[in-house]
Amino acid sequence: MSGKPTPLSGFPELLPAERVVEQRVIDDLRRIFELHGFTGIETRVVEPMDRLAKGGEIDKEIYVLRRAMSDDAGSDSGLGLHFDLTVPFARYVLENSGKLEFPFRRHQIQPAWRGERPQIGRYRQFTQADVDIVGRGELAFHHDVEVMRVMVDALSALQLPPVSFQFNNRKLIQGFYRGLGIADVTAAIRVIDKLDKLPPDVVAEQLVESAGATAGQAERCLALASIRVGDTSFVDRVRDLGVEDELLETGLAELAAVIEGCAAVATDTVSVEANLRIARGLDYYTGTVVEIFMSGYEHLKSVGGGGRYDALADDGKNVYPGVGVSFGVSRTIVPLIADGVLSGSRAVPSAVLVALTDEESRPASDAVATALRARGIPCEVAASPQKFGKQIRTAERRGIPFVWFPGNGDDGGHEVKDIRSGDQVAADPATWNPPDQDLRPQVRFHTPQETTK
Amino acid sequence: MSGKPTPLSGFPELLPAERVVEQRVIDDLRRIFELHGFTGIETRVVEPMDRLAKGGEIDKEIYVLRRAMSDDAGSDSGLGLHFDLTVPFARYVLENSGKLEFPFRRHQIQPAWRGERPQIGRYRQFTQADVDIVGRGELAFHHDVEVMRVMVDALSALQLPPVSFQFNNRKLIQGFYRGLGIADVTAAIRVIDKLDKLPPDVVAEQLVESAGATAGQAERCLALASIRVGDTSFVDRVRDLGVEDELLETGLAELAAVIEGCAAVATDTVSVEANLRIARGLDYYTGTVVEIFMSGYEHLKSVGGGGRYDALADDGKNVYPGVGVSFGVSRTIVPLIADGVLSGSRAVPSAVLVALTDEESRPASDAVATALRARGIPCEVAASPQKFGKQIRTAERRGIPFVWFPGNGDDGGHEVKDIRSGDQVAADPATWNPPDQDLRPQVRFHTPQETTK
Repeated sequence: MSGKPTPLSGFPELLPAERVVEQRVIDDLRRIFELHGFTGIETRVVEPMDRLAKGGEIDKEIYVLRRAMSDDAGSDSGLGLHFDLTVPFARYVLENSGKLEFPFRRHQIQPAWRGERPQIGRYRQFTQADVDIVGRGELAFHHDVEVMRVMVDALSALQLPPVSFQFNNRKLIQGFYRGLGIADVTAAIRVIDKLDKLPPDVVAEQLVESAGATAGQAERCLALASIRVGDTSFVDRVRDLGVEDELLETGLAELAAVIEGCAAVATDTVSVEANLRIARGLDYYTGTVVEIFMSGYEHLKSVGGGGRYDALADDGKNVYPGVGVSFGVSRTIVPLIADGVLSGSRAVPSAVLVALTDEESRPASDAVATALRARGIPCEVAASPQKFGKQIRTAERRGIPFVWFPGNGDDGGHEVKDIRSGDQVAADPATWNPPDQDLRPQVRFHTPQETTK
Repeated sequence: MSGKPTPLSGFPELLPAERVVEQRVIDDLRRIFELHGFTGIETRVVEPMDRLAKGGEIDKEIYVLRRAMSDDAGSDSGLGLHFDLTVPFARYVLENSGKLEFPFRRHQIQPAWRGERPQIGRYRQFTQADVDIVGRGELAFHHDVEVMRVMVDALSALQLPPVSFQFNNRKLIQGFYRGLGIADVTAAIRVIDKLDKLPPDVVAEQLVESAGATAGQAERCLALASIRVGDTSFVDRVRDLGVEDELLETGLAELAAVIEGCAAVATDTVSVEANLRIARGLDYYTGTVVEIFMSGYEHLKSVGGGGRYDALADDGKNVYPGVGVSFGVSRTIVPLIADGVLSGSRAVPSAVLVALTDEESRPASDAVATALRARGIPCEVAASPQKFGKQIRTAERRGIPFVWFPGNGDDGGHEVKDIRSGDQVAADPATWNPPDQDLRPQVRFHTPQETTK
C-alpha cells in the first residue's frame, strides 16, 4: 500500500507516549473497580438492529454492518455497532441470567461507536468505562450509594483536573412537582432540563405554557432547581419551599444518603454536590441521577453520568433493576492529552537500553537483557553497534532513562549510566534495579496553567 | 427491551469466570511484550475500504459500515472493520512515520472482524495479539530472531497445552527451487503448500504439471518438504540434497539463527522446530515464516503465525520492512475454555465477602471493606443481612474464599472464616491478608485427560 494516509475525523488515535496515558487510566479504573468486587466483562461489539434502534434520536447515528460482497450482494447483516455499553450489558444479563449471581456487579471498559458529526469531545469511536449493579426482581437502594462511591473512588485514583459529581433524584423532582400540583410532571422535567441553555424567565414561561404550571408554581420549580450544595443541607432548603409529598420525602432521603456516602470518599480533586436541576434526559432513570463535570472542561459538557433504572432489562419473566454510572475515557483524556495536561514520560516500555559493542557480542547484550527481564525490568538491546554516544542519543530520543554497557567476560565490568544525570556506575545484571518511578513509563500531570506557560 | 436473546453465531462471549481466563492471558502477553520493550498501541477499528480491500479472497469477508439513517439514506461510509492488525499497523506507521522512532517495536492486542461462515476456531469477532518490529528503509535480520523469541517467551508465560513454533524461510525455499532449476518457483511454493491436504504423489504430479518440474526435481522438492527437526541439523540435510544457490545459503543461515535463538528460550510447553514445508500462503512474506500449532488442537490449524515482509508499508518516499508474529487469543482460548482445559477460579474479583449483621450496621461492614481495599484486597459487602449461613452460601456460589464477620465496637472482635476449610480466626482489618493465591481469581489448567474424566 502506498501514500501517506490522513487521520479520519472523529476517530482519535494516540501516539505511543500518549497511549501510555490511556492505558494507565484504564488500568487504574479496572484496579479500583475490582477492589470493589466488580467483575470485568466484555461484550461483542455488535447487537441486532432491533435491539439497538428504539425510535430515538440516537438511531440515525448507529453504524450498520453489511458484508462487502455477500451472496445477497450488499444486503445488511441486521447487525449494528453498539453506541453505549448499557444496551449490550442489558442483553448480556438477559442472555445469561441463569448463569449469573444477583446482585451482579460488573465493570466494562470498551469502545462504542456513534456516527455523529465530529465535534470537540465527541468522537465516532470512543472508550467508555461503566460500572453497574443489577438485581433480579429487586435491587435495594443502598446499591445506589455503593456504585456511586465506586466511581468517586475510581476517579480519585486518576490524575485529572478537579472533577465534580452532581447528583439529583428523579423521585425528589417528581414528588415535588406532584406535591406542588403541576399538571404535566414529565413536561416540567423536560422544560427544567433546558436551564443550562435558556434564561430562568423563559423557562418559567415554558413551565406555564407546556407543563400547565401557574406562575407561582413555576417560581417554586425554579427555586428548587437553583439549589446546589455540597452537603445534605438541601433537605431543609427543599422543605422550606413548603411542598409535601411522600415521593418527595423518599427522594430527599435517597439523595441525602448518596451525598453522605459519596462525600465520605471525596478527595481534593473529586467533589460531590446535590444539584437539583440535574435531570438527565433519558426517560428510563427512576431515582438517583448523576452527571460528572471536569473543571476547566465545562465545554465538554459532562464527562460521565448515570443513575438508577428500575427496568434495565425485562425478559417477560423477571424485571432487572439496575444502577450504574459511566465515565467517558476518550471524551476526558483525548482533550487532556491534546492540551498537554496529561502526557506519558516515554514512548517505550524500556527502562534500559542495553548497548552493543559490536555485532559479534550481541549474545552478551542479549544475556544482560534476559537477566534484567527475569527480574521484571523492561529493556531493549540496541539495534546496531553504533558509537556509544549515538546509542545514548537513541535512548534519549526514546526517553529511556538508563543505558547499560555490558562487561567483557567473567570479571564482570558491567556499567550502567543514568543518561539524565550522566552518573555511570558498576552494576550486576542479576541484582541492579532502577528506581521504582523509572521502571515503567509514568503519567505526568501538568495543571492547565503550566501548559500555557 | 423484552424477551430472552439468543447468542449470535461467530461472536463468542464469555461468562465472568471465563473472562478471568481471557483477561489473564491478555495481561500476561502484554507484560512479556513490554518486558521486551514493545510499545502497546491501539488503532481505531475502521479503515477506509480502499486500504482494506486488495482484490484477495478476504475482501468479501470485510464488514462495511453505513450509518443507519444518514442524509444520503443508507449509503456506505467508505469504512470497513479491520480484519487483522497488520493493515491498521502499516497505516499507523505511514501516518505517524515522522513521530515514531525506528526500529519501532509495537504490540497490539485488539479484536478484528471477518464476516466468514462460523466454524470451529473461526469467529466473526476475534482478539489477536501481534508483535512487530518495523524499520524505515532497512531492518537488520537479527530482529527476526528477536521478535520470534518474544512470542516464544510470551506463550511460555501462559498455561496452554504444548505449543510448537514451526519455522521456515522463504529464501531457503526459493533458493532451493531456483538452484534446482524449477521453472515456476511461485507455482511450486503454492503446490507444496497443499501437502497437508493432498498425498505426496499427487503433489509431485502437480509440481510437474503446474510448476514445470521434472519428476526428479519434484522428488527433491518433496524431500526438502519432509525435513522437520528441532535443531539446526536441517542445514546438513538440505545440503545433502545437493542443490547449490546463494539465496538458499542465506535462507539456511537465517533459519538456523532463528531456530538457535528461539530454542534457547523454549520450555517444556513451547517447542521450536524447523519445518521445511511451511510456506504461508500470503505473498508478502520474504524471509522467515512461522506457524504456531497447539497439541491436541491441530483441527484449529495454526493458532498463530507470521514472518518477515520486506515491504510492510511504502509511502513513496520510504519503504518500511517489518517482521512480526500474531497469536490468535480467541482462536486459542475460546475452545480451551469450552473444553474445560482453562477455567477461572471464581466469577468475582472479591477475595472476601464482608458479612452484614443487620442493615443498621452496614457502615461497620463498609468500614471493614474500605480498610481491606486500602491494602489492595478486593472485597464486597453482603447485599442483605440474611442469616450468616445464607451469607456464607452466597460466598460459596460466587467462589469467594473468605467471609468476614465484623466485630461489635472498639474491642475488635472481628473474625474471618476460610469457607473451604471452615477455619475461623480473629482478624484485624488493618493487618489481615489472604494467602497470595487467593487474592485474585486464578486461571486453572486441566490437561485434556483430566477434563474427560
